[in-house]
Amino acid sequence: SVPPGVLPLCRRPPAWGRAPRQPPGLPLAPFRAFSNNKIMVELDESAGIATMKFKSPPVNSLSLEFLTEFCISLEKLENNRACRGVIITSAVPKIFSSGLDITEMCGKSTEHYAEFWRAVQEMWLRLYGSNMVTVAAVNGSSPAGGCLIALSCDYRIMVENPKFSIGLNEAQLGIVAPFWFKDTFVNVVGHRVAERSLQLGSLHPAPEAHRFGLVDELVPEEKLQEKTGAVMAQWLALPDHARQLTKSMMRKAVLDRLVAHREEDIQNFISFISKESIQKSLRMYMEMLKKKKG
Amino acid sequence: SVPPGVLPLCRRPPAWGRAPRQPPGLPLAPFRAFSNNKIMVELDESAGIATMKFKSPPVNSLSLEFLTEFCISLEKLENNRACRGVIITSAVPKIFSSGLDITEMCGKSTEHYAEFWRAVQEMWLRLYGSNMVTVAAVNGSSPAGGCLIALSCDYRIMVENPKFSIGLNEAQLGIVAPFWFKDTFVNVVGHRVAERSLQLGSLHPAPEAHRFGLVDELVPEEKLQEKTGAVMAQWLALPDHARQLTKSMMRKAVLDRLVAHREEDIQNFISFISKESIQKSLRMYMEMLKKKKG
Amino acid sequence: SVPPGVLPLCRRPPAWGRAPRQPPGLPLAPFRAFSNNKIMVELDESAGIATMKFKSPPVNSLSLEFLTEFCISLEKLENNRACRGVIITSAVPKIFSSGLDITEMCGKSTEHYAEFWRAVQEMWLRLYGSNMVTVAAVNGSSPAGGCLIALSCDYRIMVENPKFSIGLNEAQLGIVAPFWFKDTFVNVVGHRVAERSLQLGSLHPAPEAHRFGLVDELVPEEKLQEKTGAVMAQWLALPDHARQLTKSMMRKAVLDRLVAHREEDIQNFISFISKESIQKSLRMYMEMLKKKKG
Repeated sequence: SVPPGVLPLCRRPPAWGRAPRQPPGLPLAPFRAFSNNKIMVELDESAGIATMKFKSPPVNSLSLEFLTEFCISLEKLENNRACRGVIITSAVPKIFSSGLDITEMCGKSTEHYAEFWRAVQEMWLRLYGSNMVTVAAVNGSSPAGGCLIALSCDYRIMVENPKFSIGLNEAQLGIVAPFWFKDTFVNVVGHRVAERSLQLGSLHPAPEAHRFGLVDELVPEEKLQEKTGAVMAQWLALPDHARQLTKSMMRKAVLDRLVAHREEDIQNFISFISKESIQKSLRMYMEMLKKKKG
Repeated sequence: SVPPGVLPLCRRPPAWGRAPRQPPGLPLAPFRAFSNNKIMVELDESAGIATMKFKSPPVNSLSLEFLTEFCISLEKLENNRACRGVIITSAVPKIFSSGLDITEMCGKSTEHYAEFWRAVQEMWLRLYGSNMVTVAAVNGSSPAGGCLIALSCDYRIMVENPKFSIGLNEAQLGIVAPFWFKDTFVNVVGHRVAERSLQLGSLHPAPEAHRFGLVDELVPEEKLQEKTGAVMAQWLALPDHARQLTKSMMRKAVLDRLVAHREEDIQNFISFISKESIQKSLRMYMEMLKKKKG
Repeated sequence: SVPPGVLPLCRRPPAWGRAPRQPPGLPLAPFRAFSNNKIMVELDESAGIATMKFKSPPVNSLSLEFLTEFCISLEKLENNRACRGVIITSAVPKIFSSGLDITEMCGKSTEHYAEFWRAVQEMWLRLYGSNMVTVAAVNGSSPAGGCLIALSCDYRIMVENPKFSIGLNEAQLGIVAPFWFKDTFVNVVGHRVAERSLQLGSLHPAPEAHRFGLVDELVPEEKLQEKTGAVMAQWLALPDHARQLTKSMMRKAVLDRLVAHREEDIQNFISFISKESIQKSLRMYMEMLKKKKG
């Protein structure tokens, strides 16, 4: 079982507050009070369903600030008894999330790399281990870290537009998906599909992603919200306690593995990302992106 | 390898007798001598194939008595050299087995819960680890523990009637399938399908169960016996020794895991089932079933 | 991580030479200098792609001599910076490889069995753990050890002729595929397909093998070379370093398992193959093959 203090601690850090501040018995304050620079959080208390909508243009990249806000928002929902399920989607057209923010990994200090990577881990530990029902409504492309967010949910619905693609394409950039990205991927698509897709750094158009189970369902964009609501209702029909224990049983081995190797994983990331060859290729990649925009 | 004395011991408990009592060389006594209150056992010695037919109306529920008889019958077949394969099926129309008998888990003593759970474990250890070829001829619905019996066989043929469904639906009742139910399920359908199906407590109609591999084949009811015989003949064409070692290689990790945590698993069951909230929901479920019948 | 000295040592044994002998900066000598009694090795240095073509009629069986040559050739390619990918195929019509040479396992000394089995392990450790892109162009039947070679590559393309079959059919001969054959198989087709196929010792016609993912693609024989080249180009488009680390991440657990149990696995093989019953059935099998030929 989980070493004492580790996952509980990471799930409920004292600084973020465990319980709503209202006196017990009073109705909870409206949820809009949350900080929401980069993520809009709405809670429908009667349904028990929250929506986290990424609104960090141009591409919802996962910066340190974004990740911190994500964790705080998810934590607050997790501790709010009025919330039983979360829908994760994007407010930016055509993109779900472009994944980790490369500027956080380029030309920064060792301390910064450590802080950033810890935030990436934290995001995954909280989302993959969430007690709530989590549904990804993937309404745009979702490479790398964006794909990880989708993979970490309980269910993935994607807009059927073949221009939208999804995958762990790290190898294309000359970097390597960490073992827990890989474990999460294998749990969804199996070992063979994961091996091939990770080595090729494939970005799969929505129909292909659906064919091998990377996403559970495809819908036309205009049906996404309706379908997501229906799926959430189906999952919320189950008694929370049994569903949560079952989810934990399925995901615990993989969660525990990162918890047990968390510091080592941070050190690995730092020494990899600090290499001059890696820095150089990230700089070239950023230049390319800038030219594309300009 | 298996810790000495553990699996062998659990497979061949002295009380149940290891060898037929006849002097060596004499023909074995006809198999109908077996106790068969709840399970009819027939052995075709020339073919080396036994049939275990559940005949415990109304729904072949797995009571302590049923499980004990199941283990004794299977053990006797296992130790009978004239028997190389077992077909498991139901004599009750429309139901294969409804799973664990809820009355065994409701309002009983801690000792009773322990005894009952040990019998459930024993049934699975013997069936999943059987040296014989085991084929499930699923001729009716098969929820929860009924599904586990089918999953533990080498091959599953189901009647193609979409009114018959199969699945580990424990979560629907507010309870949780134990880890070894889950391991057995994952070995058959893979991690993703298992995760989703277990969390939703899904009962899959036969055609859906076939689509994702929960059962290997669908046949019209009138073809079930013929097809089952043909499949059994195909498996028995292999040399026993090589097939048995191969089967053991595939299943050992999962069998060993329960053997290593058997007492802990019993304690977990007792403390879970003894909770007032669980007892209450089981009582409500039983009331509902009674009203349905009445 | 890998115990120091173990995998590196097995990957780069000093006797086989680590680096080309030319002074640095000079063009490498043409590859044809390699010993090639049983395997023809051609290297296209401009493309960085080598082809290993089995030419050991009648059936490319994996004798000690064949395996040794295979390992030496692969090792030389591995250490040649001009080589980034290897295509493995057969020069013998209708057969890729018939698998382990039974004459090496019949009527020989314990020392010989040990040496032979170590060579089989070595072949797999090098191929499954290769840093190069490995593509199997399966242009004929591929039972047992032949199937293992294909399974150990990164990608499998098979000629769509339904007369060609592939599978780990050891059980048909009364023997058992070792655990690392099984692990490799499970990584490709998943637990359920592997369990059934291994127990039945199935040889799958090409279309069936494709249906459940044992091979990735089927092509008409005349398109095999073109298709193999296209697939290789796709894989070589990725940066080597990231692809290699990803491949290692996917395969390390299974490679490590054999490395950790290598001597034990040799002893198991010796004691199994030395049994009179096994020797007898291998002799009968060889007699049958001889009559077939005669």
